[in-house]
Amino acid sequence: MIANTPEVPYYAVIFTSQLKRKMQEGYDEMADRMVELASKQKGFLGVESARNEVGITVSYWKDLSSIKKWKENSEHTIAREKGRKYWYSTFKTRIAKVEHDYVFEKL
Amino acid sequence: MIANTPEVPYYAVIFTSQLKRKMQEGYDEMADRMVELASKQKGFLGVESARNEVGITVSYWKDLSSIKKWKENSEHTIAREKGRKYWYSTFKTRIAKVEHDYVFEKL
Repeated sequence: MIANTPEVPYYAVIFTSQLKRKMQEGYDEMADRMVELASKQKGFLGVESARNEVGITVSYWKDLSSIKKWKENSEHTIAREKGRKYWYSTFKTRIAKVEHDYVFEKL
Repeated sequence: MIANTPEVPYYAVIFTSQLKRKMQEGYDEMADRMVELASKQKGFLGVESARNEVGITVSYWKDLSSIKKWKENSEHTIAREKGRKYWYSTFKTRIAKVEHDYVFEKL
């Protein structure tokens, strides 16, 4: 689903990852749980996610302080440690300020 | 593949879309062609793409002026018109300034 974000400016966390070939047990459950948990955080605005060869998850946030608090969330911190240890071969996180946006909807 | 972007700051264009159920003929070829064409533009830094229920393509650019020029590219403009007419039920484009990034690579 396309996130129904408010007017700019707001922030995006662009998380791009590649999974290891093996050892993906528990990954889907953890990914779902993290979306559920993130959406309960203050300042969370929405999330979009897709995966083929590479996985892209973009979460949207009101400001940098909301992102920082989400990073410090203890369950999220444990998940990230597991991710580094078991699931991801590589990932890149980018924090970006959304300055313009526009939408197209077919009526 | 995860884009090998330079040091921040740089810009991201986050394009999230949903395709129509029918009428997707020509879409894949056009999407591939746009990546090929974008990567030849001045200021292009890389692209990441994945699609399931929703498609996410994030392209990275040196500055806003590179993004503007890419938007004005005539072949790209024709592709966007076709996209609106034939392929997409909805899409959202967000232009964001990447302020922080960090990478994890399993050795």
